[in-house]
Amino acid sequence: MKTVSGRGSLGTVGEFGLIRQLKRQWPTASPWVLKGIGDDAAILKMSPGQQLLLSTDTFIEGVHFDLAFQTLRDVGFRAGVANLSDIAAMGGRPLSLLVSMALPVHISVQHIRALYRGIRDACGSNAVALIGGDTSSSPRDIFLSLTIIGTIPSHRALTRSGAAVGDHLYVTGTLGDAHAGLHILRTHARRHRTARLSVIEQFLTQRHLRPIPRLDIGQILATRGIAHAAIDLSDGLSGDIQHICESSQVGIEIWANALPLSPQLRAFAHNNHLDPFSLALTGGDDYELLFTAQAQCHDTVLGLARRTGVPITWIGEVKPKKFGQRLTHPQGRTRKLSPKSYRHFVTRTTSPSPTPSS
Amino acid sequence: MKTVSGRGSLGTVGEFGLIRQLKRQWPTASPWVLKGIGDDAAILKMSPGQQLLLSTDTFIEGVHFDLAFQTLRDVGFRAGVANLSDIAAMGGRPLSLLVSMALPVHISVQHIRALYRGIRDACGSNAVALIGGDTSSSPRDIFLSLTIIGTIPSHRALTRSGAAVGDHLYVTGTLGDAHAGLHILRTHARRHRTARLSVIEQFLTQRHLRPIPRLDIGQILATRGIAHAAIDLSDGLSGDIQHICESSQVGIEIWANALPLSPQLRAFAHNNHLDPFSLALTGGDDYELLFTAQAQCHDTVLGLARRTGVPITWIGEVKPKKFGQRLTHPQGRTRKLSPKSYRHFVTRTTSPSPTPSS
Repeated sequence: MKTVSGRGSLGTVGEFGLIRQLKRQWPTASPWVLKGIGDDAAILKMSPGQQLLLSTDTFIEGVHFDLAFQTLRDVGFRAGVANLSDIAAMGGRPLSLLVSMALPVHISVQHIRALYRGIRDACGSNAVALIGGDTSSSPRDIFLSLTIIGTIPSHRALTRSGAAVGDHLYVTGTLGDAHAGLHILRTHARRHRTARLSVIEQFLTQRHLRPIPRLDIGQILATRGIAHAAIDLSDGLSGDIQHICESSQVGIEIWANALPLSPQLRAFAHNNHLDPFSLALTGGDDYELLFTAQAQCHDTVLGLARRTGVPITWIGEVKPKKFGQRLTHPQGRTRKLSPKSYRHFVTRTTSPSPTPSS
Repeated sequence: MKTVSGRGSLGTVGEFGLIRQLKRQWPTASPWVLKGIGDDAAILKMSPGQQLLLSTDTFIEGVHFDLAFQTLRDVGFRAGVANLSDIAAMGGRPLSLLVSMALPVHISVQHIRALYRGIRDACGSNAVALIGGDTSSSPRDIFLSLTIIGTIPSHRALTRSGAAVGDHLYVTGTLGDAHAGLHILRTHARRHRTARLSVIEQFLTQRHLRPIPRLDIGQILATRGIAHAAIDLSDGLSGDIQHICESSQVGIEIWANALPLSPQLRAFAHNNHLDPFSLALTGGDDYELLFTAQAQCHDTVLGLARRTGVPITWIGEVKPKKFGQRLTHPQGRTRKLSPKSYRHFVTRTTSPSPTPSS
């Protein structure tokens, strides 16, 4: 066991450095725990045929949301989706929610109900029961913490560690829209614009405000044994892919020109002199699923896309670990994929604008 | 279904008013959910012989704790105990924890590890695995949210709704010590005292900083079918008893002179011209268990106290609902028991001093 130095601040060590230290400090082994810290959700023993999934997410005013351009219903919706998406990434079925919040005392009950309504809206037609929580006052900022409980048939959960060399790498939906939408919302709020959003802007901001958790696809991928590994894209493709590579001890090649970009994102990038591929690679909050599957399953995956109406795109391949993580451009130019994505310890609502095209 | 008005603020409606509104807005029924909102923990179906317990608690800097007189290790310890105590009150066995926190970026890793160490210390010899969480930055205040998962043999959970007329009412340990301890800590911090605490003060502050979750007693009460109903004392006896009365649709009589007071609390109250009974009735954070049991079980309960070495005191009786909640003084004088206890929406760390004796 390495010595844990305990030096540095949260800002310098970061969330993942902290997790590594904690795993040494507080062993997570227990006969009940099949998977602890380090995946989209923890897996616990339940009954011979079922396993339990548990995941938690925290949302802080001024870090994860800004009421200057989001309503409390928006905040609740996105918090709900972030939680549901963790269950989707494991291939599970959401069951129930615990909702804890701390709110300034002067906040109206109507506003609190809007927050809950947003969370409930995110659950959609999934019968997710609200089973508990804790409500407290807060001196200043709004804090929100959601814990979701889901189930999965035993031995079917999609972890980050199952990717095998030769697997195809797939992603659902289109990438980068949510990040562009956030940029538009922020700019509008800053300029106190009263002008209506263009159709393109409306599409992108909706992708930020109303993301879709890919529960159906996750469940099919898991129960039919199609996918080897999966993760949901909350921090951005180039950052989240690292977790699969680390957990599965593999490398990865992504083909830049295969990345699924919406026409709206292309137009937005063009109008703002931004690189759409940068937006797709590093923009967070898409809540799409990234998964790997055996090459033999390719037709099954395409069939799944047709059946569900959700685009699924083959964007790369799993390589041996020594290959590293590389992005290949159509001209054959290859560059190392950097884990640049939303950093949890950089204030999100004041994070820099999308990367200008180089 | 009543119309939910949505008027008022969080401060005027309070946590319990909000819970009532939410239960109407978001039905909690699900075939998996045996008990949702409204008890110490939710109960979910697991396997034929086991049920799952889930509970969550939130701790906010400036509301639930104050680093002027508590270390981060103290904060973690108390947060852990609050969570474990919810499982104790259901008669369950704690299994695993999810720990979410938001912290100022400049906070040192050493301090964060102290927070986790406190939580882990609270778990003591119970094999509670840390299975997940979320760590984020916070603009200002420290925010902590713990979710605990426990198990209980099927149909054995101690809810708040099982109290029957004629039951004896019992409480573990002594009451009011933690609140007196908080008062001492606060006064010391405010006066920038350097003088050492007296032996009495040390005892009381330790009762605040290092409360004991009554897991063993809870488990025996539940698995042997001794108790009818139980709750843990987090808000104070006079407030928490209301939850049993409401859920069980009963009244209650408490005998003032039966309330278990430590000699240290009596001395503290005497020295500060305070009413020790007020401290015992309304002081929060004791984390003792309050439970009801059939009169026939009285000897079994006394035996349990002897076996575990934890005092258990017979403090009153369950009455019909129309009796209300009354406190009887030795001279025969009776007064209505008011639900005066820590209010979640009154800032705790600036709450008034203990009630002066009248």
